[in-house]
Amino acid sequence: MAFSTSFPVLHLPERLASSSGRSMSPIISSWYFWSNSLGRSCSPDQSLRSTRPDDARSNHRQHSARPHFDGSEWSASGYRRDGAVDRRISERPLRLWWALAGARPSLNTSTMEIGVDSFVAATVDRLTGSAVDPAKNLSELLEAIKLADEVGLDVFGIGEHHRREFLDSAPTVILAAAAVQTRRIRLTSAVTVLSAADPVRVFQEFATLDLLSKGRAEIVAGRGSFIEAFPLFGLELDDYDSLFAEKLELLLKIRENTHVHWSGKHRASLTGQGIYPRPVQNPLPVWLGVGGTPSSFVRAGILGLPLMVAIIGGEPRRFRPLIDRYREAGLRAGHSPDQLRVGIHSLGYVAENAATAADDFFPGYAQSFSNIGRERGWPPVTRAHFDALLGPTGALLVGDPERVAEKILYVNEALGGISRLTFQMSVAALPHPKLMRAIELLGTRVAPLVRTALASGTAEELLSTNSHRAA
Amino acid sequence: MAFSTSFPVLHLPERLASSSGRSMSPIISSWYFWSNSLGRSCSPDQSLRSTRPDDARSNHRQHSARPHFDGSEWSASGYRRDGAVDRRISERPLRLWWALAGARPSLNTSTMEIGVDSFVAATVDRLTGSAVDPAKNLSELLEAIKLADEVGLDVFGIGEHHRREFLDSAPTVILAAAAVQTRRIRLTSAVTVLSAADPVRVFQEFATLDLLSKGRAEIVAGRGSFIEAFPLFGLELDDYDSLFAEKLELLLKIRENTHVHWSGKHRASLTGQGIYPRPVQNPLPVWLGVGGTPSSFVRAGILGLPLMVAIIGGEPRRFRPLIDRYREAGLRAGHSPDQLRVGIHSLGYVAENAATAADDFFPGYAQSFSNIGRERGWPPVTRAHFDALLGPTGALLVGDPERVAEKILYVNEALGGISRLTFQMSVAALPHPKLMRAIELLGTRVAPLVRTALASGTAEELLSTNSHRAA
Repeated sequence: MAFSTSFPVLHLPERLASSSGRSMSPIISSWYFWSNSLGRSCSPDQSLRSTRPDDARSNHRQHSARPHFDGSEWSASGYRRDGAVDRRISERPLRLWWALAGARPSLNTSTMEIGVDSFVAATVDRLTGSAVDPAKNLSELLEAIKLADEVGLDVFGIGEHHRREFLDSAPTVILAAAAVQTRRIRLTSAVTVLSAADPVRVFQEFATLDLLSKGRAEIVAGRGSFIEAFPLFGLELDDYDSLFAEKLELLLKIRENTHVHWSGKHRASLTGQGIYPRPVQNPLPVWLGVGGTPSSFVRAGILGLPLMVAIIGGEPRRFRPLIDRYREAGLRAGHSPDQLRVGIHSLGYVAENAATAADDFFPGYAQSFSNIGRERGWPPVTRAHFDALLGPTGALLVGDPERVAEKILYVNEALGGISRLTFQMSVAALPHPKLMRAIELLGTRVAPLVRTALASGTAEELLSTNSHRAA
Repeated sequence: MAFSTSFPVLHLPERLASSSGRSMSPIISSWYFWSNSLGRSCSPDQSLRSTRPDDARSNHRQHSARPHFDGSEWSASGYRRDGAVDRRISERPLRLWWALAGARPSLNTSTMEIGVDSFVAATVDRLTGSAVDPAKNLSELLEAIKLADEVGLDVFGIGEHHRREFLDSAPTVILAAAAVQTRRIRLTSAVTVLSAADPVRVFQEFATLDLLSKGRAEIVAGRGSFIEAFPLFGLELDDYDSLFAEKLELLLKIRENTHVHWSGKHRASLTGQGIYPRPVQNPLPVWLGVGGTPSSFVRAGILGLPLMVAIIGGEPRRFRPLIDRYREAGLRAGHSPDQLRVGIHSLGYVAENAATAADDFFPGYAQSFSNIGRERGWPPVTRAHFDALLGPTGALLVGDPERVAEKILYVNEALGGISRLTFQMSVAALPHPKLMRAIELLGTRVAPLVRTALASGTAEELLSTNSHRAA
């Protein structure tokens, strides 16, 4: 059979189908696929429910994660075996993990990293289908990373995509260029499509990046919801879950040991071969990038991996039950609360004033999501809908510096304390100068406000304002 | 069975065994494996002969390249089917290609690129087996590349190795860091172990590098004589030839078309998927990196690919018959003489005066080759042997700037005109300041001498001096 760049709908596994039963094809992200409820027809909680799609075109069997990740642990803690959230549980106050931790940590972590995640979009000529001056896009991206470093942002992430609209099929190559032009900023994937990669190569590349950056490399490993990678690298969507579980296991083994003994289904065995070079950081940070699949949260907790959650629609607070599940699973597995860090990947943007920010962000955002919508049968994005997401409890972190800082503190509180928050601005296809100005404001205005509030305990004051607005 | 970092001798294919029948295990290069006769017990011509090793431990069947590369073309042009050179032919003056070209080109091409190829060695602590400050090694490498660019050298190449002694398992990641710190110098692999890689990933990485460097990326694809890569990536040495042939074919298809239809034995089929991003250069330069295997020269000619020949021992002129075969095969296949470029990868080093150069280079060189020797059962390298290779017709380009420039011109003449010459200095494990000074001298003294001589026709004058010395 012939594949085009868009993979036949027939082959979408059910996790890749929307809760309404309409099939979804990928366009924007390798990662926030499932979480993009967009505050639309289905509520976020509904979007987390992986009910069987009613679309007869989906002919896939039920996918489940590997037993050692999500067996009894999962079903015992309020999730149905089919992956859906048990509503009775999700609406209960979930304080078990605090109990397990022995004490309830401060709602606000005393530090929070703030950064940028970028998907490197190509400017595609509609007539020829070719990218227009892609070298310029990359050059501008590197300018953005340099600026992010200069203004003191903590982290910059680059996505991985394998389709015409993007230039980031080899993110470590781009990050290496950034490594030698920056000093302090941490450099990460957002996300590495681990399902489609060889963990040996992934480790080699990130270890090299870690050496080049003198210890600033991180991996955010994701499941490769971006299904173009599957046919491109000869993989079966039927193996969606087992590919990721196995490759994550191998990646963590390589991280732990130079000489690796391992065997699995999807990659040749290793029988003690050495994997080089070794990174500066030991262990090299590996986060788990998740959308809204409950088993992914539990898996990250059991493994004691920091968790990067993509929240791009609806209300962030609706992710609290899943994040609590992560912490609970992690503590039960014997990991310390410090180890169970949570980061949030958000859509956001900052300008001098809120109205400008919204007006700058809306057109590109609307176009991106309307494009997805066209592929997925959704109605076009409206300004009213967009404005709703800008509200104090909505997912979009778009506004003036003060408003955005407040919202970050609100998200921090709503999710029980977060360690990292990244702004994905590339979705809005902003002109380069506006993007640069936003990065400057993030570093010089937003981040200091957040840091000061968290350090001085004034967060509550800011939050009360925010709550007032929300009321 | 358990693999250690050194692959069992039992599994060496015969191309990886020396002509004397002693088994060879890899240590230095992914590439100059077969060509490293080292001017020792066997003559270069002997080293080119892939006679069956008499060592009973080699249990491999005869390997042959794919028929469409080397079938009738190969046997018809003086090579035995088993790959050995027919002495009657190799000693005949081979002028056919000049005849085919219609005119004999100038012995000296009017321009020659001069550069550096580096294998990124780790400083390994003998007690712990770990690399000592590998970030520093990479940082110094980047300084060297920056300097090479500043002094006007034309090309810098980085090797690929997958063992403890090296830090360059992900060369494109390192090259990307160099790309944004340089302006004019071309950046290449030396070589990409294509047999063990996925051509889709290779293309994606080099295309990204090409965008970052604004059109300065090149691939030198080699057969992966570095056998550690085989067990590491789950490959069989029995597939040594077919892996490379197939992957090269796919790489060239991807270079030619964004959407690729391809099927083969060693990688999942492509059925029209798009490979992104696309590079600045179209076509992205792909060289074939060869040692001394005759079929590899013919393959490169038939494909019309520029040829990068590793000559690290014996006398360069002994490679002339093979290079003529390349040109002959290329012209017969309809490629223009301009397209059939030849580059030479040499061991070399420059210092203020010849004695210093030799004294600087010898200790590290001797240690490297004695280490290989220990694994392969050779006697230790002697200074007398080394000094012989420094002679006017020997393979080592070690000396003062004038002597080295003369030798480059001599090699250029002896091989019928070469387009690129690179210095591999890392074999000598030189202290960083000496390496930097050598790069400076290469750019400011050697390269101008060569350029001037080639442009003004004074090459013959220089050569007559050289010939006089050689006599």
